Amino acid sequence: MTDGIPFAGEPADSHEAIMRATFRALREYGYAGLSIQRIADEADLSKSTFYHHFDGKEDLLLSFQEFILTEFNRIFQVESTGDPEQDIKTFVSLVLDDFPDCVETPDKNAVLGSYVEMRAQAVQNPDFREKFTETDELFARQLVQIIEDGIEQGVFADVNPETVSRFMITILDGVILQSATRNDNPVAGVRDTIDEYIEETLILGTYSSH
Amino acid sequence: MTDGIPFAGEPADSHEAIMRATFRALREYGYAGLSIQRIADEADLSKSTFYHHFDGKEDLLLSFQEFILTEFNRIFQVESTGDPEQDIKTFVSLVLDDFPDCVETPDKNAVLGSYVEMRAQAVQNPDFREKFTETDELFARQLVQIIEDGIEQGVFADVNPETVSRFMITILDGVILQSATRNDNPVAGVRDTIDEYIEETLILGTYSSH
Repeated sequence: MTDGIPFAGEPADSHEAIMRATFRALREYGYAGLSIQRIADEADLSKSTFYHHFDGKEDLLLSFQEFILTEFNRIFQVESTGDPEQDIKTFVSLVLDDFPDCVETPDKNAVLGSYVEMRAQAVQNPDFREKFTETDELFARQLVQIIEDGIEQGVFADVNPETVSRFMITILDGVILQSATRNDNPVAGVRDTIDEYIEETLILGTYSSH
Repeated sequence: MTDGIPFAGEPADSHEAIMRATFRALREYGYAGLSIQRIADEADLSKSTFYHHFDGKEDLLLSFQEFILTEFNRIFQVESTGDPEQDIKTFVSLVLDDFPDCVETPDKNAVLGSYVEMRAQAVQNPDFREKFTETDELFARQLVQIIEDGIEQGVFADVNPETVSRFMITILDGVILQSATRNDNPVAGVRDTIDEYIEETLILGTYSSH
């Protein structure tokens, strides 16, 4: 799992250093307070070095969206264990539970918060909208694969993998939005219900043979 | 339902005129592009009249959050018909389906988009976070009431109204986030599954006696 930890180790190059600096500046100043000066300061680079990498703020933010989504894909990537019940629980747990603690790793709330702030830009920005649509689909396909494996192995009910997967991604998007924008812990209130939904909808034999 | 239509009729006073102007400016320039000059221009007011009403941008944005949440509460308020099955379907339909068309009414995507942009500010702003937590709870309580009525009347299964309600609000928050930030129509992909969830979880007799 260490490979899946975001921000671990030294940044590979100054592009990555700028991306991490943007993440820190976003945490500190919010989206509206992001400026090239602040990002250059965080990255300990001159503005001219910055402009060697990016044309300007818009160019930077498109790259940063790419960076955050890549981190997201890395965090929420489930390696198939051959046991679809385990895999689907791992997937849900990656969204709902805490990252394993790790030096240099921002806590999950910081990553989810940045994700929500970037995602809200998609309301106005068609490039962002296109990218988030693709990423949602990528996550949905990952779940479809797990569900298809489960049906094939005879451990999941014969559901429509597409619709169950979309429904689950919607639930997880709701949890992410709430977690990043509420002052209580909304996960605690829905965790059991999500587990029950999976047990009742997908997993064969939970109520009969277990 | 006309009472529930946002932005219908003339604004009651210049406070409301400024709120509507903020809404239009937000649609046009995005959250990062909101400025007092632009809002004053949209409202056809001088900046000095603006400052008669608000101390500054932060003060305005807190009022605007209040305004958007009031509109939200007005739109998503279900008058009990005495038939809980009908009421819960009305509630879901208010989130998932289109507003009835009405002169001066922005389309639902515009309202949901503004909601998501404001909600993303809560990542950074504790005042916003507190307010959105309250509003989520307000919606949840509305659903709890409908579910309790249904159980009492013997038409809903004996579920835990709190957990089912939280789960449904999470699903609807997920739909709202996706609808406002994707370039396809995510509601179409989950509508049937949400209806099925309600039928299977709540409504007694759907599969046996109907």
